[in-house]
Amino acid sequence: MELNGVEIEDTFAEAFPIKIARILITGATRKWALVAAQETTGFGTSVIMCPAEAGIEKVVNGNETPDGRPGAYIQICTFGYKALEEQLLKRLGQCVMTAPTAAMWNGLPGAEKQFDMGFKLKFFGDGFESEIAIEGRKAYKIPLMQGDFIAEHNIGAQDGIAGGNFIILAENQMAALAAAESAVDAISEIEGTITPFPGGIVGSGSKTGANKYKFLKATTNEKFCPTLKNKVEGSLVPPDVNGIYEIVINGLNKEVISDSMRAGIKAAVRVPGIKKISAGNYGGTLGPYKFNLQELF
Amino acid sequence: MELNGVEIEDTFAEAFPIKIARILITGATRKWALVAAQETTGFGTSVIMCPAEAGIEKVVNGNETPDGRPGAYIQICTFGYKALEEQLLKRLGQCVMTAPTAAMWNGLPGAEKQFDMGFKLKFFGDGFESEIAIEGRKAYKIPLMQGDFIAEHNIGAQDGIAGGNFIILAENQMAALAAAESAVDAISEIEGTITPFPGGIVGSGSKTGANKYKFLKATTNEKFCPTLKNKVEGSLVPPDVNGIYEIVINGLNKEVISDSMRAGIKAAVRVPGIKKISAGNYGGTLGPYKFNLQELF
Amino acid sequence: MELNGVEIEDTFAEAFPIKIARILITGATRKWALVAAQETTGFGTSVIMCPAEAGIEKVVNGNETPDGRPGAYIQICTFGYKALEEQLLKRLGQCVMTAPTAAMWNGLPGAEKQFDMGFKLKFFGDGFESEIAIEGRKAYKIPLMQGDFIAEHNIGAQDGIAGGNFIILAENQMAALAAAESAVDAISEIEGTITPFPGGIVGSGSKTGANKYKFLKATTNEKFCPTLKNKVEGSLVPPDVNGIYEIVINGLNKEVISDSMRAGIKAAVRVPGIKKISAGNYGGTLGPYKFNLQELF
Amino acid sequence: MELNGVEIEDTFAEAFPIKIARILITGATRKWALVAAQETTGFGTSVIMCPAEAGIEKVVNGNETPDGRPGAYIQICTFGYKALEEQLLKRLGQCVMTAPTAAMWNGLPGAEKQFDMGFKLKFFGDGFESEIAIEGRKAYKIPLMQGDFIAEHNIGAQDGIAGGNFIILAENQMAALAAAESAVDAISEIEGTITPFPGGIVGSGSKTGANKYKFLKATTNEKFCPTLKNKVEGSLVPPDVNGIYEIVINGLNKEVISDSMRAGIKAAVRVPGIKKISAGNYGGTLGPYKFNLQELF
Repeated sequence: MELNGVEIEDTFAEAFPIKIARILITGATRKWALVAAQETTGFGTSVIMCPAEAGIEKVVNGNETPDGRPGAYIQICTFGYKALEEQLLKRLGQCVMTAPTAAMWNGLPGAEKQFDMGFKLKFFGDGFESEIAIEGRKAYKIPLMQGDFIAEHNIGAQDGIAGGNFIILAENQMAALAAAESAVDAISEIEGTITPFPGGIVGSGSKTGANKYKFLKATTNEKFCPTLKNKVEGSLVPPDVNGIYEIVINGLNKEVISDSMRAGIKAAVRVPGIKKISAGNYGGTLGPYKFNLQELF
Repeated sequence: MELNGVEIEDTFAEAFPIKIARILITGATRKWALVAAQETTGFGTSVIMCPAEAGIEKVVNGNETPDGRPGAYIQICTFGYKALEEQLLKRLGQCVMTAPTAAMWNGLPGAEKQFDMGFKLKFFGDGFESEIAIEGRKAYKIPLMQGDFIAEHNIGAQDGIAGGNFIILAENQMAALAAAESAVDAISEIEGTITPFPGGIVGSGSKTGANKYKFLKATTNEKFCPTLKNKVEGSLVPPDVNGIYEIVINGLNKEVISDSMRAGIKAAVRVPGIKKISAGNYGGTLGPYKFNLQELF
Repeated sequence: MELNGVEIEDTFAEAFPIKIARILITGATRKWALVAAQETTGFGTSVIMCPAEAGIEKVVNGNETPDGRPGAYIQICTFGYKALEEQLLKRLGQCVMTAPTAAMWNGLPGAEKQFDMGFKLKFFGDGFESEIAIEGRKAYKIPLMQGDFIAEHNIGAQDGIAGGNFIILAENQMAALAAAESAVDAISEIEGTITPFPGGIVGSGSKTGANKYKFLKATTNEKFCPTLKNKVEGSLVPPDVNGIYEIVINGLNKEVISDSMRAGIKAAVRVPGIKKISAGNYGGTLGPYKFNLQELF
Repeated sequence: MELNGVEIEDTFAEAFPIKIARILITGATRKWALVAAQETTGFGTSVIMCPAEAGIEKVVNGNETPDGRPGAYIQICTFGYKALEEQLLKRLGQCVMTAPTAAMWNGLPGAEKQFDMGFKLKFFGDGFESEIAIEGRKAYKIPLMQGDFIAEHNIGAQDGIAGGNFIILAENQMAALAAAESAVDAISEIEGTITPFPGGIVGSGSKTGANKYKFLKATTNEKFCPTLKNKVEGSLVPPDVNGIYEIVINGLNKEVISDSMRAGIKAAVRVPGIKKISAGNYGGTLGPYKFNLQELF
């Protein structure tokens, strides 16, 4: 199957379950909402060694926020709810409450699982805080140097999916990178997903486990390494390919991950120099979800 | 004392010792170096609850880097070298090695303390990695999907200073924020310092300890809260002030912190609506370093 | 009438007829589409002395463009079609055809007035160009150093409206500016309008004609100048206002200008320090269109 | 000759004389200085059909500006001083005076040729303006809605050089573009030069005159068009090259253009996929200045 002349491989992305909290951060302007969102979601690429996977989901305008100000939805993801609660407390307390003009709101008000994050943060007010209601949402007003910080009482979380992915194979590194950038831009408009890696892009797509260094949980996926294509047996790098990037997608459910994969692939194949789209799967050692590439179209 | 008509209070910033690692991240373009640097230094505002304090120090061009590509110096700071080593391994492994086109270099090659981070990361290569020397620096070439990742063997660290600061008091929040933004821009040109908070700016300047909630190590600095100025005794918020931001600065030594405070204050007082510059000190409960504001000029 | 506690004055914006061409510029990535759009719409604030008024209307993803790539709609406005044709030829030829990865498409394919801009630009191909059809659109493929430039045969234009506006009165300059920035962000999501001034914002709102220097068509609107509030009779600057910005809006019809004024004002009043929203009108000396502020809500 | 393994062709760039005015625009923050600079230098790629060539030369901090605020030097270039004066009046009046928080200063105070631009703009003040002196510079304070606009009396101009250039030949378009972007970043740090095309990059490098359409002054340089390499005789596109960008540089003198070419080429050759660096020359039909590529190193 081809899309804009680019081969879509008959393969699938393998993904795994994760817990996802979703927070809406608003700010005085779009810029300041994004400054807070960016700090809060940093050091959040992979749970292999980051304390969480995190990213900015979507920018929204004041018509869609409780305080009428522009904002950004972010997602924070961990393997269990206990780790998630700890990450929420740390990241929201240190990166949203401290951020210029930011306020924080529940991004999953209908979820069964709710963490009383606003309640926990209010103690920073040292007795000067107060409870308020904004658009029917229970929140706290915490006096700060900059003015009052508004934190909603609850932050919701739910079961989600991590590791949705596709792989862009290109003539060279810069073509692959431009396609990856365009894919991430396209995915940034889809509600419900994030691309947690730097700039949304993975330069070091891995395999589970190791051949040589067995103490490692993940090592380089040598069969997709262009500089090894003539050195490893069974290399999956075609002769005309010299640069490869992977886009990894986390999201609230299968549908939004499919939507994001579709949007990202459609954008990527428009960039000149792209040769093939593939996906990462690991024989079920990573997780139970499968996203077949060709079925997306 | 006045600067551009703005009062510089006769007070001082109180700061404390910290350990600082310094890394140079290069990329194919300035943009991609910054993408890696940003992810690596996120979730890094305050060691109160972040695993490290971190920030981008300075952007450099290819004339100043081992691989001739544009780059950015970053700093990662923790209270001890053990925590620092762990943070380096996690942040460099998960946020630099994964980042599009990034390479990592020792930002303190002359420091006594050196961590063999490149050596530790090379195992991701699963046996396909190799040792190389670039501009006399021992490094590793690790094959990745995107191409080869270059990681220098050593990353240096040293004793540094955290918590250098000044406080901008303004007519309202937006004036204070514009001044803070301009101060951060000015400091970004000074070698050796970072401003680790979101956008370089602290909206929630704190006091050590608490009056009411004694289980907290830091709580809101109510005497600097504009919305409490008529509610707390001894408020330090002048009648004409309604917005306050703090700039917190970490750096390699006293001189660069002084330089950054000077540059930041000079920039801040040029913004209309700024009423006063002060600084945070806590009777020695925070740390041993003192930076007198008026002596900066 | 008040919105979020800010007075909306009982007044109206006065606007005038203009001719508007609308072009869709696509690029390999969103960034490169915007680079082209920005150069093309520069030096385009006011027809008083700019050869055209111009701005970026809206960013779109590949689902909404003929070539499946991300893009940006721009508008170019002049008083008559002759001037418009000249501006189109110059701006599209010099700023789109030269731009990295850009292509140009008709943004008003249904308009009665069509300029054969693609046809005129094809001669740059010096005989190596060819006619093609993309998604049913007649276009030309012009070989360039970077590859082939695609230019649609026709670029449509229509009667539009210039000078829709509102005025933000604030406690000080920085509060007014933050509100103006947020207003421009909000308007950037409305289809059909542009804000042609620098950053979408006018710092120098004018009156028609002059009191003293009669040779000028427009001079400073002294009754809205904060630094003159105690010097001119009939100043419209309230005692608590010290910074004022105007947002000027051009658009395809009355409805989209109303929508943009509404969105912009709603965003502006959320910024702390805003005291009042007004609008510019000149007793009918500027033009026939009236947009009553209070009727927007 | 090779640089980082990339062939530097034994050829030269041909350039021509132009008149250059240089203006320093300052703003409340770096961002706002750049907003003004960008609008002012837009629609300014080539004098073939733009009213001027223009670009941002260099960003400076408050230590280097008369008002202590951050700023950006821009250049505006035309063939003669009469056209230059007209462009200055229009661009500074419409794009700097209108811009949020901007002020304008003489960027060539020592030049023999001086235009009394501040004097001409002061009439916008309609009698409310006043003369002032700042750091020994004669200027005007013009009351505006946003506050007072400061315009220096004189703006200097001098003989300069346009059309300094080099050409980046790459494996494909995206590699060429990344190299061009990195080159432009490097040049942006060199004092005295601009890269006037969109994003600093030319996608449509031309030859003087035409083969077929003789009424055109410049047409596509078919010998450098990758999609024509098998169709035109004497194509200069090597077999392994499929994407080419040109960087065009204007500057105050030969030295700064040489410095910029050197910095740009050094940056470009570091990007993977670059095959060759060449330059544009036209047998003396364009101009008298020659910049030999190999002599730069």
